[in-house]
Amino acid sequence: MDSAVVLAEAAHAGFATHALSFDYGQRHALELEAARRVAEHLGAVEHRVLALDLRAIGGSALTSELAVPKGRREVEIGAGVPVTYVPARNTIFLSLALAWAEVLGAEDLFLGVNALDSSGYPDCRPAFLRAFEELANVATRAATEEGRRFRIHAPLLSMAKREIVLRAEELGIDLGLTHTCYDPIFAGTEGLACGRCDACLLRLRGFREAGRVDPLRYADPPAG
Amino acid sequence: MDSAVVLAEAAHAGFATHALSFDYGQRHALELEAARRVAEHLGAVEHRVLALDLRAIGGSALTSELAVPKGRREVEIGAGVPVTYVPARNTIFLSLALAWAEVLGAEDLFLGVNALDSSGYPDCRPAFLRAFEELANVATRAATEEGRRFRIHAPLLSMAKREIVLRAEELGIDLGLTHTCYDPIFAGTEGLACGRCDACLLRLRGFREAGRVDPLRYADPPAG
Repeated sequence: MDSAVVLAEAAHAGFATHALSFDYGQRHALELEAARRVAEHLGAVEHRVLALDLRAIGGSALTSELAVPKGRREVEIGAGVPVTYVPARNTIFLSLALAWAEVLGAEDLFLGVNALDSSGYPDCRPAFLRAFEELANVATRAATEEGRRFRIHAPLLSMAKREIVLRAEELGIDLGLTHTCYDPIFAGTEGLACGRCDACLLRLRGFREAGRVDPLRYADPPAG
Repeated sequence: MDSAVVLAEAAHAGFATHALSFDYGQRHALELEAARRVAEHLGAVEHRVLALDLRAIGGSALTSELAVPKGRREVEIGAGVPVTYVPARNTIFLSLALAWAEVLGAEDLFLGVNALDSSGYPDCRPAFLRAFEELANVATRAATEEGRRFRIHAPLLSMAKREIVLRAEELGIDLGLTHTCYDPIFAGTEGLACGRCDACLLRLRGFREAGRVDPLRYADPPAG
C-alpha cells in the first residue's frame, strides 16, 4: 500500500517512474506480483525485479523460519524493533536503487517508508534517509564527476496509515491490487492476508480510522 | 590481492574473520574461486558467497558487453572514472556486509579499497567510507537499540600497490592464490590474467616497484 501511494505521488509530481522490487527470499513474495500489477496500474515506464537472496544472511522472521508475531496490541507494535526487522534492508534496497538511478540518469529516489504508525524499524527514520542521501552524493560517479545530486524522497514519512488510505483514494489508486501481509495464508493458489501480523493490523487500523473498507480478502476477518 | 591483504590484516589484528564475496555477474567470476582459496589459506572462520546479479542493472564494463580498456598508460588510468566502474558497487557490497555483521554480532567491517594507485573510483575514497560509517550507525537495530558501533576499516586506503605487495610478504600471504584481472583469458579450463587491463597493469607495476616477481601466470607477459 505504501509503495503504491509513493509511486502514485512520484507520477503525480510529474516524474517518469521506474519501479524496482526485490525478490529477497521474503515469505510474502506474493507482493512481487502485486507490485507488477500496481506498477502497470499507475503507469510506470518500467518495473524491474531484482533477485537477492537475503535468506543467505537471515536474522529476520521475514527471511527465515522465525515466526511472524501475530495479534500484537498497538502498544507492543510501537515498542522496540520486532523480529520482522530485516538487517540493513532499506540500506541494501536503496543502494541498488541508487545503482539503477545512476545508470538511468535519474536523480530522484522515492521510497514508501513511514516513521509514524510503523513497526519502529531504524531504517524508516529521517536520520537514516538523510545519512543515505549524504552517502549517495559521495558514492557515485554521477555525483562526484557529473555534478548530479541525488535526492531521497519519502513523502509518506510523517503520514498516519489513515492519511495514506485517504491519499490513495485522492490519487485514484485501486488498493485492492496491493499486498501488505507479512505471512499470507494460502487457500489453493490464492494467498490471503492473515489479518493478524503487524503489517495487517496497521493497515486495517488505517482503513478503520479513515472510515473506509479494505478491499482485500483476509483469512482471518478482523473484528468490528 | 587487496582483499587478501586486508583479510590477513584483520586476522593479524586479532579478529575472527568472516569473509564475504559477491557473485554479481562480473566477467572475472574466477575471483570467487580465488577468494575461497585465500579465505582458507588465511584461516577465515567462514567464507560466504552472496549471489546478486548486477547485470540486471548494467552500466559497467565488468557486468555488460562494454569492452574492458586495455593497455592504458598510467596518466590515463589516473584520469577520471573508467568504464569498469560498477554503479554504487561498494555501497551495495558494504550494505550486505553490514547486514551480515549485524546478524553475526560483529562491529568491524574491513574492505580492501585503495585510493592511491587505483582507478579513481568514487567509492574507494575516504569521504565515501566516512559517509558509510555514519549511515551504518543510524541504519541498523544493532546501532540504534543495542548500542553497537560499526567501524569501517580500510587499512590499504593510502597504500601504494608496491607497499601492498611488500605487506603481503610480511604477512606470509601466498599471492599466487589471488586473482586480480578484470578480463581473464581462458586457455582450456585455466583463466589467465590478461596483463593489459587497468587492474593487471596496476598490480604488475606494484610488483615491479617492490622488486618482486608476480607469481601469477599472464596470457600476455609484461615487458621488462
